[in-house]
Amino acid sequence: MQTNNQTSGIIDLQYGGGGEQMNKLLDDVVFHYLRNDILNVRHDGAFLDLEGRLAFSTDSYVVSPLFFKGGNIGDLAVNGTVNDLAMCGAVPRYLSLAFIIEEGFAMQRFVDIVKSIRMAASHAGVQVVTGDTKVVEHGKGDGIYINTSGIGTLHARAAIGIDNIREGDAVLVNASIATHGMAIMSEREGLQFGSDIVSDTAPLNHTVLTLMERFGGGIRFLRDATRGGLASILHEIATAGCFGIDLVEERLPVLSDVRNACELLGLDPVYVANEGVFICVVPDSIREAVLETLRIEDPAAAHIGTITTDHPGKIISASAFGGRHVVHPLVGEQLPRIC
Amino acid sequence: MQTNNQTSGIIDLQYGGGGEQMNKLLDDVVFHYLRNDILNVRHDGAFLDLEGRLAFSTDSYVVSPLFFKGGNIGDLAVNGTVNDLAMCGAVPRYLSLAFIIEEGFAMQRFVDIVKSIRMAASHAGVQVVTGDTKVVEHGKGDGIYINTSGIGTLHARAAIGIDNIREGDAVLVNASIATHGMAIMSEREGLQFGSDIVSDTAPLNHTVLTLMERFGGGIRFLRDATRGGLASILHEIATAGCFGIDLVEERLPVLSDVRNACELLGLDPVYVANEGVFICVVPDSIREAVLETLRIEDPAAAHIGTITTDHPGKIISASAFGGRHVVHPLVGEQLPRIC
Repeated sequence: MQTNNQTSGIIDLQYGGGGEQMNKLLDDVVFHYLRNDILNVRHDGAFLDLEGRLAFSTDSYVVSPLFFKGGNIGDLAVNGTVNDLAMCGAVPRYLSLAFIIEEGFAMQRFVDIVKSIRMAASHAGVQVVTGDTKVVEHGKGDGIYINTSGIGTLHARAAIGIDNIREGDAVLVNASIATHGMAIMSEREGLQFGSDIVSDTAPLNHTVLTLMERFGGGIRFLRDATRGGLASILHEIATAGCFGIDLVEERLPVLSDVRNACELLGLDPVYVANEGVFICVVPDSIREAVLETLRIEDPAAAHIGTITTDHPGKIISASAFGGRHVVHPLVGEQLPRIC
Repeated sequence: MQTNNQTSGIIDLQYGGGGEQMNKLLDDVVFHYLRNDILNVRHDGAFLDLEGRLAFSTDSYVVSPLFFKGGNIGDLAVNGTVNDLAMCGAVPRYLSLAFIIEEGFAMQRFVDIVKSIRMAASHAGVQVVTGDTKVVEHGKGDGIYINTSGIGTLHARAAIGIDNIREGDAVLVNASIATHGMAIMSEREGLQFGSDIVSDTAPLNHTVLTLMERFGGGIRFLRDATRGGLASILHEIATAGCFGIDLVEERLPVLSDVRNACELLGLDPVYVANEGVFICVVPDSIREAVLETLRIEDPAAAHIGTITTDHPGKIISASAFGGRHVVHPLVGEQLPRIC
């Protein structure tokens, strides 16, 4: 770190000690790429002016590998927290950014990650306003872990809550499922599918904002289906109230490459992690209008099921051939270190 | 995790996968001990009602060892972020809490840490309102890492900023320095000093609130001296403006056990990490009144130096014997993994 542009070398423990080298790392990389009026104050905390009700969310990102088709841990860390805020019906505004870097991590990779963070923050329309950097000894981490926490302002028309769900409501999904999980798998050693499955990591806040503007409280429940896949969110709905879900298997949007890869590995796409996928529960009366809105972003958006009182606590999936089976909750994890 | 009270066993990868076992870990430990009205909503984000200007801060805690005399990583993670907010002149209100747990971590230790978090949050008067739990493979972490991010409401009378510092201002410290760093060192293998040095981890927000109420904008600058010790904060002041600092060496409060341990290891206490120590810069006219307030909490509070234009960018320390030496910035780190 001799000059502002030097990005060779590795990050060692000295960069995390609170002394001059840490300041150089912050100046040359973090502040250099992420500068904005609030971050530039460089106090231990950021000063924010916000009005109205707020949403607050946190997530640590431990994905392995760090770089994969369609993204890296940097944009994942921005989009993931942006999406958690969006799922609250909030407009994401500010992020904190905390790195835990393993000694020996290549400076160039760190720079690449910070650049991705800048781009993802710009796409999502959020600012990184405060941060922290720690360096741990070799063998006490896995390259880099990132935590982002986010603050958003609740949309005035938002009224999202699992308690708002009613019998007969339509269960919609905005995009094809299982893509992120299979993109990560395809990067991992020994699992080349010979196809190009690209992670669906993306900010969902713009889509959610459109939903809020058009439908307000008509959007009864939103949740992104990350770790644990679609099944885990559906089970959350089914265990929160006195409802079950009737799922129509053939309506689940899954890209053909992803479906093939899942079959090869014996994985059910409903349990595979996603990044840019969310569930949306709405009254059946506005179902088509909401779907139409979702399809502007992704034609794969689909009506996948219905809230029912017939089998409370259970998700029953009907196949195209007339068979019905219970979708069990995920026990343990199917794919570790996926986000 | 058979029952609500079972705390035996270890945490394996399945606990971090987003499925049923993770839900049990959250129910039986995290929500069990940290429950409050906001956290209980269990959405991906928390809904907050806050008014006025906010402060927002984040910190990851990677201390080694995890348990030490006077505290553990849990209370450290609460107090550290509470203190960062307090240093902004804010009243800390809400925390996020994110765990990165290494596979094989003992459930009982996790429970002990969560219990410490509960107690520290209660002492500081903050609520944990949202969280995240990840589990990484054995050898990819170091037991547990914790990130907390915090939101506070800025005190109406707060006007803290490094730009407010003026020539002739008094530099005060609230408590004895170097205690936390030496407490951590004394726990580390092969470094038993034969004395009981106890970490000074503590929430500083109540003291800062009193300062705000009594002195408002008279408190020109506040900063807690954690990683990098007192010297790093003084250098931050000296490099931000056109000022230097005249330090009076014998006024630096250091407990005798801590001083002895530092001498034994050849460490200068000004570079050793602290947790419950902060620097306060005030006009000389209110120096004694502020000191009096600080001494209610800790009689060791001291007037350690003066802001000067004589040697801008430099900190010059005068010893009791008339010698003067430059306090250089910390290069690298003296003690790794200290907070």
